[in-house]
Amino acid sequence: MSAQADHPTLLIPGPIEFDDAVLGSMGHPSESHVGPAFVNAFGEVLSMLRKLFITTDLKSQPFVISGSGTLGWDFVAANLVEKHDEVLVLHSGYFADSFATCLSVYGAVPTQLKAPVGSRPSLEEIEAELKQKSYKAITITHTDTSTGVLSDVKAVSELVHKVSPDTLVVVDGVCSVGCEEIRFDDWGIDVVVTASQKAIGVPAGLCIMMVSGRGIDRFKARKTPPSAYFASFANWLPIMQNYEAKKPSYFATPSPQLVRALQTSLNQILSVPLDYRFQKHKEVSQKVKKAVAALGLRQLADKPECQANGMTAIYLPEGVAASDLLPKLMAKGVVFAGGLHKEIATKYFRFGHMGVSVTNSDLGHIDKAIEALKSSLAEAGYKH
Amino acid sequence: MSAQADHPTLLIPGPIEFDDAVLGSMGHPSESHVGPAFVNAFGEVLSMLRKLFITTDLKSQPFVISGSGTLGWDFVAANLVEKHDEVLVLHSGYFADSFATCLSVYGAVPTQLKAPVGSRPSLEEIEAELKQKSYKAITITHTDTSTGVLSDVKAVSELVHKVSPDTLVVVDGVCSVGCEEIRFDDWGIDVVVTASQKAIGVPAGLCIMMVSGRGIDRFKARKTPPSAYFASFANWLPIMQNYEAKKPSYFATPSPQLVRALQTSLNQILSVPLDYRFQKHKEVSQKVKKAVAALGLRQLADKPECQANGMTAIYLPEGVAASDLLPKLMAKGVVFAGGLHKEIATKYFRFGHMGVSVTNSDLGHIDKAIEALKSSLAEAGYKH
Ligand SMILES: Cc1ncc(COP(=O)(O)O)c(C=O)c1O
Ligand SMILES: Cc1ncc(COP(=O)(O)O)c(C=O)c1O
Repeated sequence: MSAQADHPTLLIPGPIEFDDAVLGSMGHPSESHVGPAFVNAFGEVLSMLRKLFITTDLKSQPFVISGSGTLGWDFVAANLVEKHDEVLVLHSGYFADSFATCLSVYGAVPTQLKAPVGSRPSLEEIEAELKQKSYKAITITHTDTSTGVLSDVKAVSELVHKVSPDTLVVVDGVCSVGCEEIRFDDWGIDVVVTASQKAIGVPAGLCIMMVSGRGIDRFKARKTPPSAYFASFANWLPIMQNYEAKKPSYFATPSPQLVRALQTSLNQILSVPLDYRFQKHKEVSQKVKKAVAALGLRQLADKPECQANGMTAIYLPEGVAASDLLPKLMAKGVVFAGGLHKEIATKYFRFGHMGVSVTNSDLGHIDKAIEALKSSLAEAGYKH
Repeated sequence: MSAQADHPTLLIPGPIEFDDAVLGSMGHPSESHVGPAFVNAFGEVLSMLRKLFITTDLKSQPFVISGSGTLGWDFVAANLVEKHDEVLVLHSGYFADSFATCLSVYGAVPTQLKAPVGSRPSLEEIEAELKQKSYKAITITHTDTSTGVLSDVKAVSELVHKVSPDTLVVVDGVCSVGCEEIRFDDWGIDVVVTASQKAIGVPAGLCIMMVSGRGIDRFKARKTPPSAYFASFANWLPIMQNYEAKKPSYFATPSPQLVRALQTSLNQILSVPLDYRFQKHKEVSQKVKKAVAALGLRQLADKPECQANGMTAIYLPEGVAASDLLPKLMAKGVVFAGGLHKEIATKYFRFGHMGVSVTNSDLGHIDKAIEALKSSLAEAGYKH
């Protein structure tokens, strides 16, 4: 029986449920961060990330750093823009506000293009805004985890390349990498920032990034040095290049156990065609969304094309409080998340469907969750 | 048989060997970072850190953040000093150079007080320097991991409080917390920065800090906001306070698995009086240092009072290269580290003796390493 037996099923939009083998790698015996075995493993992880992000351009640069998704924003803010640089922040929920705050901490000047809750800025609005100022970068939250709103990264990136070609295309992929289609080269993306604990299926603790050759060139052409030390490409770029070339080097100690777990998970993810993985997440997402609709519940993201495939944010029915519903679900062994978007936090809840819970239907996580949702709502007095 | 069986024994000055139960906790099933079980565990960890640092002053504030020791320098530089603030950096090896660089990235003005390799600045030199300028902070590397030089934190702190009472006392305890005596309150320390992977005995991936009430007040009295986002006390202080009060809150996702492993390790560490733990590290260190001397080898840190108890940095004998010695040791299942101090990196090697390898003599790590060192030196043609 696995050590995981009988724990409640975690179906929040990250951290997600982890595969036994991935958790097993977390207990990897101690090894030197500059020893050949670990250097080799880290090098493989970096090469595998190129596949995950679908980039074959050798100028693209993967990074894996102890931290979390948030730290990726610091990397962008401290390395890819300089003081007084204008940045257009597309807002589809909570996370754009935080990214914008992070950018201003380092002296960049964010302009947020906001959409109503449950929606995303339109291509027309984005085009108009891009023509207002000379933006050094645009940020897109691929899936905003507070609303479940999906952005059309491909279309936005195409638009940016057309109307404002010097603007770096920065994607917050914390809640999308590993479950939503991302074609780094084909879509002309410059940066994707993500974290380990969502659809990549590894315990929290890693900030993961892919930066284009153009992004690295922009960094190298800075007039001022990076404005952070730990979150500095200057410090990490040679280290990442060395690890990928299987050469030891040191700036700050990486986490062998987390990197080993990432190696295990990436091996699993890449053993199946990525398109199949994305398709599977779409199918399971549709199943969840149909069940939600059948229960007479409404999603925050109301247009199908802006609904994420890795999670669903759902309005609570009239008269049912999250503080009543979530414990009822918990009693049935299912953990959902409450609301996060400031304006409406108490009015909705979130169901995460990423990773093994989606790809391994034998686990029965999704069916169990849908059933638990139905019966918990009934217990809470909801009649449909 | 444990999953750890037969792996080479890691006796570098971090990462160290980990206890089976600690590695077991790394495989903790996934749980929500805001769920009651994890919030409770994190709260306990923070309370236990107060015991580890020997502080009962309720104004002291522990922090546990995904990252590594280096990130702790960013926290100091971005939160506790402001642009143009003078900082005195006591130099006893490689790590002071890096800390000084980090301070200047954020606009502080470090002055390094350097000692010759294997030595540390004297109290007289420090006193003279403190009288030169109005230093906002002084940094002390407790054990410099590149040289094995131990600083007298107690004496330096007393001196600072006497001659420059407004100067914050900042200790880099990455290679000392958990193996060297540190009395946070009694010694009047304002900040200790450390990491998980050394004498605390937890896989790399956590930056751990203790900040005094005076340090927090200094932070709150800043004229400018913190100059980092991820490494900002403003963002993490409420989160740490909430976790310790067993209340859920979110700024960036912590790593449940690493925090669980830290909980396991701190429970183990605190189950024995800390003084006993410090004494044990001294005894084993003496044993190693006697064996080294008996082999006719010289330490970098030549005066006994400035020799660390968690590691020993040893000059290679004439005619023996590290590139010859270290693989011979590895063949006997013992991993030592090469040199790190820029000026003399190829001339010495390092033997780490911290954590379970010291406290659990049944493991036989230290005896095995001393034997392996003797025979490897002989094989390398060294005659004493
Ligand atoms: C879209 C998005 N961006 C950024 C973050 C921040 O990542 P982390 O919590 O790992 O720091 C999250 C976390 O949930 C997220 O969902
Ligand atoms: C004394 C000292 N300070 C700081 C650091 C940096 O810590 P990390 O490598 O965890 O970032 C180290 C790492 O070995 C260290 O020994």
